[in-house]
Amino acid sequence: MKVDGKPTRSIWLEPDGKTVGVIEQTLLPHRFATIRLATLDDAARAIKTMQIRGAPLIGATAAYGICLALREDASDENLDRAYTMLLATRPTAINLRWALDEMRRFLRPLPAVERAEAAYRRAAEIADEDVGLNRAIGANGLEIIKAIAARKQPGETVNILTHCNAGWLATVDYGTATAPIYLAVEAGIPVHVYVDETRPRNQGAQLTAWEMAGHGVPHTLIVDNAGGHLMQRGAIDMVIVGTDRTTASGDVCNKIGTYLKALAAHDNQVPFYVALPYTTFDPATPSGDAIPIEERSPEELRMLSDGASTVQVTQSPAANPAFDVTPARLVTGYITERGVLDRIG
Amino acid sequence: MKVDGKPTRSIWLEPDGKTVGVIEQTLLPHRFATIRLATLDDAARAIKTMQIRGAPLIGATAAYGICLALREDASDENLDRAYTMLLATRPTAINLRWALDEMRRFLRPLPAVERAEAAYRRAAEIADEDVGLNRAIGANGLEIIKAIAARKQPGETVNILTHCNAGWLATVDYGTATAPIYLAVEAGIPVHVYVDETRPRNQGAQLTAWEMAGHGVPHTLIVDNAGGHLMQRGAIDMVIVGTDRTTASGDVCNKIGTYLKALAAHDNQVPFYVALPYTTFDPATPSGDAIPIEERSPEELRMLSDGASTVQVTQSPAANPAFDVTPARLVTGYITERGVLDRIG
Repeated sequence: MKVDGKPTRSIWLEPDGKTVGVIEQTLLPHRFATIRLATLDDAARAIKTMQIRGAPLIGATAAYGICLALREDASDENLDRAYTMLLATRPTAINLRWALDEMRRFLRPLPAVERAEAAYRRAAEIADEDVGLNRAIGANGLEIIKAIAARKQPGETVNILTHCNAGWLATVDYGTATAPIYLAVEAGIPVHVYVDETRPRNQGAQLTAWEMAGHGVPHTLIVDNAGGHLMQRGAIDMVIVGTDRTTASGDVCNKIGTYLKALAAHDNQVPFYVALPYTTFDPATPSGDAIPIEERSPEELRMLSDGASTVQVTQSPAANPAFDVTPARLVTGYITERGVLDRIG
Repeated sequence: MKVDGKPTRSIWLEPDGKTVGVIEQTLLPHRFATIRLATLDDAARAIKTMQIRGAPLIGATAAYGICLALREDASDENLDRAYTMLLATRPTAINLRWALDEMRRFLRPLPAVERAEAAYRRAAEIADEDVGLNRAIGANGLEIIKAIAARKQPGETVNILTHCNAGWLATVDYGTATAPIYLAVEAGIPVHVYVDETRPRNQGAQLTAWEMAGHGVPHTLIVDNAGGHLMQRGAIDMVIVGTDRTTASGDVCNKIGTYLKALAAHDNQVPFYVALPYTTFDPATPSGDAIPIEERSPEELRMLSDGASTVQVTQSPAANPAFDVTPARLVTGYITERGVLDRIG
């Protein structure tokens, strides 16, 4: 999407046809800087230190990491070494393993001299496929926004709440939860986005709000506490969130706090949508009770940094569950690339 | 309650019998410092700059402000001047007007030479009455905690969630929502408190958690997003919150985000209690829809300070509603000094 008016993806091949550009996301929203990945080590470091994040973008970056490795040495040994090193960068991202498996499956049968060029071709396809997937999610979600707009006065704004960052920064472009919003803007529908701050890591305040500002989407930051009140007062027309995993029963695992917004939406008859590529649907997990919830460092609550300086909010003992599970009964629909599903599974 | 083992109130008469000590609450939790109020100006400034806050404590501080004024000049004119100056310090605190009206009503008929001494006597009574009120709320709430403990294994912990700071720092002692917790500790019942961070002003992280630490109450800080998940996983036995105003229909106006916790409690059959002195019940307001909600500065979301330094989290446009309304249907009971009421009004 646009950054200060200029169309930008979260990852791109540089004009030299070899090195790979990404956004240094840890500096957002305070500074927009890009970094150039020239080696396998650069790619692995970018993933590991979260200079880039978001499952689809991690996958695309890993695919390009294979390219950078093969550019120097296209042997079987080096392909395996790159695979292993990149796979170890983050523990849980499902797209990481998928992209690496796909690259190795495709490249292994090829003669070594052809591998580097073929790798760049396949990596570009993986990136483009992600964009296409998100555009399809966006097109399906757009129909929902259009239907809400049609029930309003002409020109009246559609107000959308989102939580965390399931935005273009987490993917190659468009995002998942944000794709319908960007397509509504393209279609000329007046939208306004309420952006949940998303404590403790502030992805809403620091990433989603930055995305919206860069692309010129009207938006307002709110604390995670405020969404219920806004729904009570009729200020929100729909909620769209992403998901890290959705179970066979349609239970939605997503960033901590999503469940509270789903409860408020249900209590106020506000439609609550989950945007997801169909690959995020996990039929092997029967329901949300079965999902182990990652407990992250209490330091995430205690400290806050703006890149330049850090303040200590508190030294209290703290618990930091990173995700929660929204039961399927609270979900109005699942926006996928295949269509909007009332039920999933 | 205790601060590092030493019993402390939020306001006290100094040993000189004239000046008044309070805690400099804007420095908490980073530094515990007290300040001495020696003049009317000192008292007005302490209220206005929020060195002290919380409706009952504001009332007690205003009462002592009258004492400090009369100590220098006990004339009618000076009594009126002190009344007017103190009333103007904060716009909405109901206890502020009540305490000032009570002091003037009591002092006006007295000869000027008797006024200062009588003022100190009445101010001390107002402070003690607040402590008595909160202890009565605590005693009634304690019965609920005892009943929950009785359904558990002997020695098993009762887990209580609270939001914002309706603690002893906001009153003269004990607090409202915290009074049952402190009395449970006195009674030897094992309790553990989940403290909501309470964005954007972090009163949970910075005041409630500090109170709990000082008094030795086991506690864990969590982000406002986490309470629903903890209830889903059975980690919370009850919720207790305070209220700024409760309507004729029993709708509860309290810090933004309270409503979301009430929804989650209801969805998980966790009892949700509101602790309030009966004076906070406002029969003149029919229901929550009628309550105007204060919109505070967006800077409260954008900046975060630890007293020493400040970081800018974001520069996004932001909305900052300070309160929300929890419908009576979500409230299990109202813990008052008169007893625990299933319904109010």
